[in-house]
Amino acid sequence: SDLSERFPGHDSIDFPVAVVLPAGGSGERMGLATPKQFCTVFNRPLISYTIQAFERISWIENIVVVVAKESLHLMMDIIHKFCHKKVKVLLGGSSRHRSIFNGLQAFGEMPDGKSLRKPKVVIIHDAVRPFVEEDFLLRITIAAKEQGASGAIRPLVSTVIATTSEGYIDHSLERAKYRASEMPQGFVYDIIYQAYQQCSESDFEFGTECLHLALQYCGTNAKLIEGPPALWKVTYKKDLFAAESVIKDFLSQACVITTVCAESAELAHRFQKSLGARSMQVDVISGSFGNNQPLVSKTWNFIHITANIACLAEISRTVKTLHEAGQALLYPAVLILVHFSVLPHSSLTERMGQLGAIRHLAMEAKHRNILLYAILLNHNENAEQWEETVESASEITTALVKDRNPALAGQLLVA
Amino acid sequence: SDLSERFPGHDSIDFPVAVVLPAGGSGERMGLATPKQFCTVFNRPLISYTIQAFERISWIENIVVVVAKESLHLMMDIIHKFCHKKVKVLLGGSSRHRSIFNGLQAFGEMPDGKSLRKPKVVIIHDAVRPFVEEDFLLRITIAAKEQGASGAIRPLVSTVIATTSEGYIDHSLERAKYRASEMPQGFVYDIIYQAYQQCSESDFEFGTECLHLALQYCGTNAKLIEGPPALWKVTYKKDLFAAESVIKDFLSQACVITTVCAESAELAHRFQKSLGARSMQVDVISGSFGNNQPLVSKTWNFIHITANIACLAEISRTVKTLHEAGQALLYPAVLILVHFSVLPHSSLTERMGQLGAIRHLAMEAKHRNILLYAILLNHNENAEQWEETVESASEITTALVKDRNPALAGQLLVA
Ligand SMILES: [Mg+2]
Ligand SMILES: [Mg+2]
Repeated sequence: SDLSERFPGHDSIDFPVAVVLPAGGSGERMGLATPKQFCTVFNRPLISYTIQAFERISWIENIVVVVAKESLHLMMDIIHKFCHKKVKVLLGGSSRHRSIFNGLQAFGEMPDGKSLRKPKVVIIHDAVRPFVEEDFLLRITIAAKEQGASGAIRPLVSTVIATTSEGYIDHSLERAKYRASEMPQGFVYDIIYQAYQQCSESDFEFGTECLHLALQYCGTNAKLIEGPPALWKVTYKKDLFAAESVIKDFLSQACVITTVCAESAELAHRFQKSLGARSMQVDVISGSFGNNQPLVSKTWNFIHITANIACLAEISRTVKTLHEAGQALLYPAVLILVHFSVLPHSSLTERMGQLGAIRHLAMEAKHRNILLYAILLNHNENAEQWEETVESASEITTALVKDRNPALAGQLLVA
Repeated sequence: SDLSERFPGHDSIDFPVAVVLPAGGSGERMGLATPKQFCTVFNRPLISYTIQAFERISWIENIVVVVAKESLHLMMDIIHKFCHKKVKVLLGGSSRHRSIFNGLQAFGEMPDGKSLRKPKVVIIHDAVRPFVEEDFLLRITIAAKEQGASGAIRPLVSTVIATTSEGYIDHSLERAKYRASEMPQGFVYDIIYQAYQQCSESDFEFGTECLHLALQYCGTNAKLIEGPPALWKVTYKKDLFAAESVIKDFLSQACVITTVCAESAELAHRFQKSLGARSMQVDVISGSFGNNQPLVSKTWNFIHITANIACLAEISRTVKTLHEAGQALLYPAVLILVHFSVLPHSSLTERMGQLGAIRHLAMEAKHRNILLYAILLNHNENAEQWEETVESASEITTALVKDRNPALAGQLLVA
């Protein structure tokens, strides 16, 4: 039961499932030179986020990505760079439907003997809908197995009107009776494969709906399931902005690492509380996170709290650990050194002398996709002023985590 | 001709035009407690951005905002705080159509004698579509005057399907024949007013389209005009993220202010070039911008370049000037002090001594919605290293302008 909570498909999916991702689109609508599936967030193309959304699911075996010839090299680089393991890349056809059919042919029937195991259910998705969740994929997959086909729908955002050829309104549709057809869609493999085998040139060229082909050629009427808003499609430039913010928002979990000294531990707990009030979820650990692998694996923000100015060796070790764990492979990790001094008159110059060393380490870390920043707290005997300083440090921390800006890596900020 | 370029409606709109903005919605879809029109970007509610989009247009006389009773107080505060001048606020009805009809009644017929001049054309828009542009409003207005009614349309993003009551696909619509009906819509005032006077309780309660009412009750068939992608509606939380990024993107123009010293002027021009390569448009001015009002009015980023450590009086003057010009009323202004020293071994401690003064000034400026940051460049005799330092400063500048994060105001960053 613990297992089925962590892996919801564990009990119910006892048959092979694969994914086809047509990614041949040119993204003209976006007004950008790069096709939108290859536009990057944190230097990682959108399609890698979409692949990851499927790859992390234990019951999905294979992901076939279908690309245009001119994108093949780029796609292979992406798979290599971000260590995607379940992906096979194929060349697409001259239309979306031809590309999907090419993708379906990767299973069970390839003459080169390199074919993948034929799935019972195949999920078809868009490369530019990176936020699809396991629980919804599970529903689509089970419905496809039971009904032969299934598809995500969403309520209409705008009224839909039929237009006359002269550009006037003909009639408007009654909104309640219609839905937007979205992705993912699921199919019993044999059904969608047969539908494509039978479909006409005109279907290949102008058809828009796989659901429609399954109905027309196999008599399979798809089960429609209302999906969450997260299924939205990155279409315009503003959607790319939104995707970046959604991803940043997702990376707000933090881990505070303290030394054993009582002042550090106390400051760590104040930080936890203050960051919590700013909607960050924070775990506190003492010492290093040597055997705290589960915690590290879900965290992309690390906050070292220390009163010891000679702590750079420790920070350096953390950079190494995160790098070796591959933690910054998919998202940039943020590492913040929060340094406070209990000595009332410690020399500013002395501390500033550390800046060079921090900057040097930050440049190294940046090459490993780890963004290192430092925050300096001047300890104040006055409780109220100290409270203000801690709040200020917490505000700066939240800003660094939210903006995740590589241009500020290596900077020493004063709380 | 210069006039009609700057004010495209100047020649063609010789009749009164007003706007009705229904803003009574509850924003449930967003998953937020605050109705989406009152969600803030840079501490300013979305509806203020939408009002501003109309208010800046010379040929629009009045904007009637219709709100729910519980939002009345908030709405009045917004108008006061952001100095909106053309707005009249009315209470809405129990449905969107009743609210629009309430809004229309503000013109020409109010018993209290406080009525506004009756417009020839009234534009109806959504409070949550803040990016509508003058040229498109002009097209909507002229088409409404000529045809009686007009409305924005957009291509469908998803296939629309008719569903059976059991949740199966009934049929899918042929995408080319349908359009999404969006806002704004324009009407000859008398036509839409008559349509509302005649319409039924059921229309008031369940109707969705003003265009449909004009057709049904007045026989007026609306001219449909394809609008730009910028007409999108803020519906979900991710749309609010997108709106924030679009607004930030819009604020990328910068003004570099140099002193007369040759080194400053040279650095200013390097900055202009380097920022230009990072997609920022940069003007350089020498001295202060005393009589450069047109430049100030379109700029929200100011970069002071100086070798003089005692330049804070100058920065303070700039803060005062921007505040008095109301420049930071609608968007936070960014003010960056770029300080470089030509003395090779100037004391770090001495410069750091300035940090306290900068922080103090930054806190004052922040209350005026001006975000002050400082960047320190250590001059290097080595041309290549100096080039790198300038590039680093330019990268930091771009990051500060892009993120526009108040939490980092008052910080001294080292390039
Ligand atoms: Mg489709
Ligand atoms: Mg409508």
